[in-house]
Amino acid sequence: MVTKEIEDKCLDLVKRSGIIILSNLNEKGYPSTRALLNMKSNGLKEFWTTTNTSSKKVGQIKNGQKASLYFIDEKNFLGLTLFGTVRILQDENSKKKLWQNGFEMYYPKGVSDPDYSVLYFKTGSAEFYHDLSIVEFEI
Amino acid sequence: MVTKEIEDKCLDLVKRSGIIILSNLNEKGYPSTRALLNMKSNGLKEFWTTTNTSSKKVGQIKNGQKASLYFIDEKNFLGLTLFGTVRILQDENSKKKLWQNGFEMYYPKGVSDPDYSVLYFKTGSAEFYHDLSIVEFEI
Repeated sequence: MVTKEIEDKCLDLVKRSGIIILSNLNEKGYPSTRALLNMKSNGLKEFWTTTNTSSKKVGQIKNGQKASLYFIDEKNFLGLTLFGTVRILQDENSKKKLWQNGFEMYYPKGVSDPDYSVLYFKTGSAEFYHDLSIVEFEI
Repeated sequence: MVTKEIEDKCLDLVKRSGIIILSNLNEKGYPSTRALLNMKSNGLKEFWTTTNTSSKKVGQIKNGQKASLYFIDEKNFLGLTLFGTVRILQDENSKKKLWQNGFEMYYPKGVSDPDYSVLYFKTGSAEFYHDLSIVEFEI
């Protein structure tokens, strides 16, 4: 069990982050990392963001593949790694939930644009670095 | 071959980064990510930083293991991933090269403190995200 105080610090860090740093394994077995917009989350448990179906990242991701999200506050020496699995969602319902005004610029065909996908991350466990020490906990 | 312009942009991003974001695989097969100080590098080819021998990260790292470094400039939508291998160096010479005034705070026994190690990353290839597109090149 993690304390409420630690959990709140983690949630605050996630809330303040404009981006999520996603790592998964590429086809050569290297961890591959890139930043995505921090668009929607359910506590520390679930994260959703949008991505291009045609992007290299989507090509790499096998549904259910092991991945991690990283959040960092460089100034305050805080770092949070969430370990879990990643999945590409292409059902209309998931795509509608993430849709925002202005997305037409990237996806001219709207919600049903085949190049518009949702990336879904489900957390299993966490490592939080703060005050020069690491706390590990299950989610 | 990468153009001089792209290489310079990458080098500039590395130079401006106070941290390097290292990902390697943990013992459960998940990509594990954390920030380390950006201490010393040789272009885009090699990176050195210090770490605690007793840290979890060092325990995880198998010499020569596949890893990546990530550099990000959130404001300018720039991201650089370097793919390569990571190694823990504990020879006196490598440890001396990285030693800085004030390290006694962390390593009371000085350069020869057994808890003081050098983490070395050697790059193989790169992916640079800029202007909404990705350039891949060998290092």
